[in-house]
Amino acid sequence: MNKIQVIAFDADDILWANESYFQAREADYCRLLADVLPAEDVSRELLCTETQNVALYGYGAKSFTLSMIETALRITRGQVTGDTIARIIELGKSLLDMPVVPLPGVEDTLAHLAGSYTLAVATKGDLLDQQRKLERSGLAGYFDHVEIMSDKRPDDYRRLMCTLGCRPEAFLMVGNSLKSDIEPVLAAGAWAAHVPFHVTWAHERGDDRLTSDRFLHISRISDLPALLG
Amino acid sequence: MNKIQVIAFDADDILWANESYFQAREADYCRLLADVLPAEDVSRELLCTETQNVALYGYGAKSFTLSMIETALRITRGQVTGDTIARIIELGKSLLDMPVVPLPGVEDTLAHLAGSYTLAVATKGDLLDQQRKLERSGLAGYFDHVEIMSDKRPDDYRRLMCTLGCRPEAFLMVGNSLKSDIEPVLAAGAWAAHVPFHVTWAHERGDDRLTSDRFLHISRISDLPALLG
Repeated sequence: MNKIQVIAFDADDILWANESYFQAREADYCRLLADVLPAEDVSRELLCTETQNVALYGYGAKSFTLSMIETALRITRGQVTGDTIARIIELGKSLLDMPVVPLPGVEDTLAHLAGSYTLAVATKGDLLDQQRKLERSGLAGYFDHVEIMSDKRPDDYRRLMCTLGCRPEAFLMVGNSLKSDIEPVLAAGAWAAHVPFHVTWAHERGDDRLTSDRFLHISRISDLPALLG
Repeated sequence: MNKIQVIAFDADDILWANESYFQAREADYCRLLADVLPAEDVSRELLCTETQNVALYGYGAKSFTLSMIETALRITRGQVTGDTIARIIELGKSLLDMPVVPLPGVEDTLAHLAGSYTLAVATKGDLLDQQRKLERSGLAGYFDHVEIMSDKRPDDYRRLMCTLGCRPEAFLMVGNSLKSDIEPVLAAGAWAAHVPFHVTWAHERGDDRLTSDRFLHISRISDLPALLG
């Protein structure tokens, strides 16, 4: 672990809260369709649409909005009103304009690590939206590199390490998603630190029985500097 | 011009056709709404929506789809049917699944230049969609670097040149949009080659009176190697 030179951070729910905003908008969406189906059924139908669309649409608020509209059409058998569609579009736009406040401990941790490590952001999602959130967060200046990725498979991380001129044993990924931030990074031979967030999108849940000598568990991001020594 | 080391290519309508597919889907969209307004008025309303949304949504097929839905809601005063919305979503999905065939002369030109220059793709648009189109085109192997950009301002090109370790006088951008591929590149002190395409999105039209010693005009991409000597 003392060979680590590059630390890459997932952005949503590591640097700032994200999933909680999506879940709040999803709750609004379920209320819009409360006459059609109970909320838990609307959510299940939406996740089904999102899962079918992710290969075509990728991640982010625009994909989420299009999947909300498609789900509303399906569960109402095309009888959804124009007013409801317009409100769904507004819910989606509000996610592209949400406040971006660093989570507790994030800025101090980055300031502490910045002198000793190359710091990067490695996030999935919509290109423009993720760039805008990083700017709004006020954290952009701490990072030497920003990588917005369409997927997070082992090969995607290998490509990132290649871009950064960094071997796997010198690379540590910090994230909250076992599926996207931990499993593929360990598979690529690098280090991974899991910082749980209180909510995780169902699509992002992974294998919680995972073990590896290169898998670090921390309860909050501010524990990272002490762990790295 | 003999100092050029890096050649960056816009992707849509330079490496493969794109705008013609968008315009064909826009024509289908106008037909869906033919009972509401004449096609030219639907197109004008759509461009207005797209222009308002581009700062929030960015570029690409998902943004286009959301703007088509929003425009349909507005011009029908919310009376658009669920069936029409579903067909708009299908039009948008078809753009994410369109054939990607290199334009004439592209592959030979890239093969000719690859030995002597660092080649890059520098394109706006949706992250996942542009990566998928590059893979589908069969051209990915010619490029040393792929940059998918949320915008193409002079500072965006300066950042790209920095990433590539390339000074402005050694950088040539090849593109069809005066607004995105030529003007900002010249402003950043680099070279730009304009290869016109037979259709250009209204949002991308630029100043066609532009002059500069670093502005090259070619009628087709296969003229590039001879021009570079």
